[in-house]
Amino acid sequence: MEVGFLGLGIMGKAMSMNLLKNGFKVTVWNRTLSKCNELVAHGASIGKTPAEVINKCTITIAMLSDPAAALSVVLDKDGVLEQICGGKGYIDMSTVDPETSCKINEAITSKGGRFFEAPVSGSKQPAETGQLVILAAGDKALYEAAIPAFDILGKKSFFLGQVGNGAKMKLVVNMIMGSMMNAFSEGLTLADRSGLNPHDLLDVLDLGAIANPMFKGKGPAMLQNNYSPAFPLKHQQKDKRLALALGDENSVPMPVAAASNEAFKKARSMGLGDMDFSAVFETLKVLKHSS
Amino acid sequence: MEVGFLGLGIMGKAMSMNLLKNGFKVTVWNRTLSKCNELVAHGASIGKTPAEVINKCTITIAMLSDPAAALSVVLDKDGVLEQICGGKGYIDMSTVDPETSCKINEAITSKGGRFFEAPVSGSKQPAETGQLVILAAGDKALYEAAIPAFDILGKKSFFLGQVGNGAKMKLVVNMIMGSMMNAFSEGLTLADRSGLNPHDLLDVLDLGAIANPMFKGKGPAMLQNNYSPAFPLKHQQKDKRLALALGDENSVPMPVAAASNEAFKKARSMGLGDMDFSAVFETLKVLKHSS
Amino acid sequence: MEVGFLGLGIMGKAMSMNLLKNGFKVTVWNRTLSKCNELVAHGASIGKTPAEVINKCTITIAMLSDPAAALSVVLDKDGVLEQICGGKGYIDMSTVDPETSCKINEAITSKGGRFFEAPVSGSKQPAETGQLVILAAGDKALYEAAIPAFDILGKKSFFLGQVGNGAKMKLVVNMIMGSMMNAFSEGLTLADRSGLNPHDLLDVLDLGAIANPMFKGKGPAMLQNNYSPAFPLKHQQKDKRLALALGDENSVPMPVAAASNEAFKKARSMGLGDMDFSAVFETLKVLKHSS
Amino acid sequence: MEVGFLGLGIMGKAMSMNLLKNGFKVTVWNRTLSKCNELVAHGASIGKTPAEVINKCTITIAMLSDPAAALSVVLDKDGVLEQICGGKGYIDMSTVDPETSCKINEAITSKGGRFFEAPVSGSKQPAETGQLVILAAGDKALYEAAIPAFDILGKKSFFLGQVGNGAKMKLVVNMIMGSMMNAFSEGLTLADRSGLNPHDLLDVLDLGAIANPMFKGKGPAMLQNNYSPAFPLKHQQKDKRLALALGDENSVPMPVAAASNEAFKKARSMGLGDMDFSAVFETLKVLKHSS
Repeated sequence: MEVGFLGLGIMGKAMSMNLLKNGFKVTVWNRTLSKCNELVAHGASIGKTPAEVINKCTITIAMLSDPAAALSVVLDKDGVLEQICGGKGYIDMSTVDPETSCKINEAITSKGGRFFEAPVSGSKQPAETGQLVILAAGDKALYEAAIPAFDILGKKSFFLGQVGNGAKMKLVVNMIMGSMMNAFSEGLTLADRSGLNPHDLLDVLDLGAIANPMFKGKGPAMLQNNYSPAFPLKHQQKDKRLALALGDENSVPMPVAAASNEAFKKARSMGLGDMDFSAVFETLKVLKHSS
Repeated sequence: MEVGFLGLGIMGKAMSMNLLKNGFKVTVWNRTLSKCNELVAHGASIGKTPAEVINKCTITIAMLSDPAAALSVVLDKDGVLEQICGGKGYIDMSTVDPETSCKINEAITSKGGRFFEAPVSGSKQPAETGQLVILAAGDKALYEAAIPAFDILGKKSFFLGQVGNGAKMKLVVNMIMGSMMNAFSEGLTLADRSGLNPHDLLDVLDLGAIANPMFKGKGPAMLQNNYSPAFPLKHQQKDKRLALALGDENSVPMPVAAASNEAFKKARSMGLGDMDFSAVFETLKVLKHSS
Repeated sequence: MEVGFLGLGIMGKAMSMNLLKNGFKVTVWNRTLSKCNELVAHGASIGKTPAEVINKCTITIAMLSDPAAALSVVLDKDGVLEQICGGKGYIDMSTVDPETSCKINEAITSKGGRFFEAPVSGSKQPAETGQLVILAAGDKALYEAAIPAFDILGKKSFFLGQVGNGAKMKLVVNMIMGSMMNAFSEGLTLADRSGLNPHDLLDVLDLGAIANPMFKGKGPAMLQNNYSPAFPLKHQQKDKRLALALGDENSVPMPVAAASNEAFKKARSMGLGDMDFSAVFETLKVLKHSS
Repeated sequence: MEVGFLGLGIMGKAMSMNLLKNGFKVTVWNRTLSKCNELVAHGASIGKTPAEVINKCTITIAMLSDPAAALSVVLDKDGVLEQICGGKGYIDMSTVDPETSCKINEAITSKGGRFFEAPVSGSKQPAETGQLVILAAGDKALYEAAIPAFDILGKKSFFLGQVGNGAKMKLVVNMIMGSMMNAFSEGLTLADRSGLNPHDLLDVLDLGAIANPMFKGKGPAMLQNNYSPAFPLKHQQKDKRLALALGDENSVPMPVAAASNEAFKKARSMGLGDMDFSAVFETLKVLKHSS
């Protein structure tokens, strides 16, 4: 099977590599084209523009960093829209707000193309091991055609109905995840500052009702101030902002998510936006004031 | 082995029953003595007062509802203190604040008794199945003598040093757990209100980095407005208050825990204090105003 | 002097009436035209569309309810843009986000028109008594031409520089005002629930360092559950949302504004959006839960 | 009239000086006795211990820094309790929690003494100019006897009923004041960071519905990073903590006060506890992280 792949960041690179390694023919594009080299070394072709990838492939997958990038790849000069047409399908796996996803859907379908969104749950490691959870919504026939690719990229895929629902589900999951990271960070800080061994806390947590892979995976690194980015903090904060906006539209008060969002904004203001989102831990440490 | 057991609430009843079923001789006491009947039917003896239990047993375990009850059982007329003496040990497994635990320690040791605190992580079900996590701190020799009982009550026990550290560890764990429950409740509400199926959210969560037994166990019941108490909301709010007080002493800002605490207080003001702490979910639902 | 006036809600009606009473010739338009009748009775002319008002008047003022209305009046069929041209000026006094204001500016100036934004501080009563504070930003020559009107509408006007700055200043002021309303509501509730007379609290506050017209003006009505709308709650929440978005862009964490915003969202979910924003007081009262 | 005066901090010194300057005979005591010198230079007598002051004076006023100090001055060796008796009155004007005030009341009245609490609203400057607002509660006959002193110390005094009510009123006022300071700080920061002149914001605020002496008085100093202590931040945070505890007892959720409290704790953790409470402004500035 042949697919196009737009966007080779942390996630996109791992995903396209998995497709290559499992026998797919993949044509890749990235804004900084040099990032394509490693994939070419593993057998990928290059498209010089998004339009060129669409022209060459029946199905193209995109994995971009934010809503602006997701829109620009479709709408800008040499973008997806210039070549999409009846018989071609476009799958956006970026995490974007529901509104952006709907705009892309309208643009693609107005040219006769098929579209669904398919944001994922899971960051760097699940992307590398093909263990993502895929949240698809939109054109069901295209979804079914894409299942062989999803079988490689993920451990499970959901079809959630109309375009926008995948984006919403992803935002909800990331909102919960972010708030849990704050709760975890506050607990580690309180343990340490009140005379307990935070490593004991990790052990106790791992035996109880709230044991989860995130605490187990990130806890030891956080205690060493290691925030090597799996899911960059600025993206977590963006998702939290979008989830709060979704709550605002639907009159859902979410006081804990709101407090969490401010902590992530604080972390961004400290210059931690490109680190892993677990770096929100730093906002709780004792800091000297500036004046 | 023979032990005394003071306090037969949800937790104490399950724990003392486990001891009985595993061959321990158990002498029980409860403020409302009729609650002892079921245990007597399984072979327990009754002590009419805490003092009588202490008098009869070398080691006595207490599992009481709050700091006031924990203090009163020790200090009041016919209380533990009247009979505790050299050669006798007292283990308080209630969740109390570190200060209360230290007061009890001073009272017991001033009479020559041995003491350690041993609050647990886990509520009704782990108590029934002997899968508690035990957070012991205080007299290490007494701790070692109690290990046969702990092997039945829990799946793992930690010895954390000086009296107060068990209480602190428990508060930290419960604080994290409470904030996670808010994050989970906000996510379920947002999913529902923005057109997603909250049961899909449960499935997606269970496949990802934040999958944990609490979400899996409580989620389906919450979606049916079922808040049958495993861990009463008023106790969760009490623990959150005590954790925030501990943070206050140590200048640890905890904005997410603080927002969470206010949500639990809101729930208490709605009359939900005796339901399971997952009833904080109700605070997010659409309510009519009163005037 | 002759001016056009678009939008006759609570604010616009009071403002255009002041202009009429002070000798201005005013041509008014409102989406529901029947709202013009009272002004016509005082000597105003009617324009059947925004375009007709612009066509007739050299300077037109708009006072609309939200960013969508502000854009629609300019861009829709029969809107401002159809008749604006060199030599004509348009002043938008609505409270909108900076981005909306910039869009309107671009549209007007692209046709050769002059534009500035001039949101106001102050609600119904200051509008009626000509005591608004006017926050102007944009075309300075047009601002100077409008001063005779501003002398009637307000007690003071500021010129704050480039388009967008008036909108931003207004959002900042309203954000502070909203958070103060929460602080005030929490204080009144705490006083009442802990056995004090909340009327005594009003007297004490009015004598101290935080005495202010809002507490003095709204406090007694709030204690009678009277939330007759001077500044509707849904508009306060909108402004708070926009202020938080502005903070997000500039990496400014604002934990108190975020908590306040959630309280206003809670109030909206209780159906209080059209009442005065002081109705956020209701969110603190004891409510029965729904299940 | 002759009065004793215990505690010569910022507040106590200004207050006792006012009494002296208005013809009262004043006997002063302070833990660090050297602080009495300036008052002696203006005609005060010294008592070497609280007991000595009580012995000498019919009515003694105390103004101490916190609940611990307020209790210690009464209960410790050489304290008030050693000399209080029928015919003597004790007035505690410190800001303490209601529980502490009740303890002091019990101690004093058990010896036949009369007592009322009288915390004040207002800090350094109103103390110096005799413009405090006095919140009295307790023994009404003693209150009436103290009116000549209150006429000098304050511009208005309230009698609020039973002991504890003065303390509660004070906590409520300070809670509102602290949250307003956060709202103000967030507004100043947002203005500055989004390209506005924060001095313009001060001018706009001062013309509107939320104009108040605190914003006007502290704003300009805050913009110069000047936090010379009128009301120390650590005391504001203590009052906020006590107000939240009062809300907890009465099931009053106060999400904005809770967020505010965490900001003040953050400020304390930055070493700002002894500066003016307006230094909470510093928590919003851009800081470098520590690791």
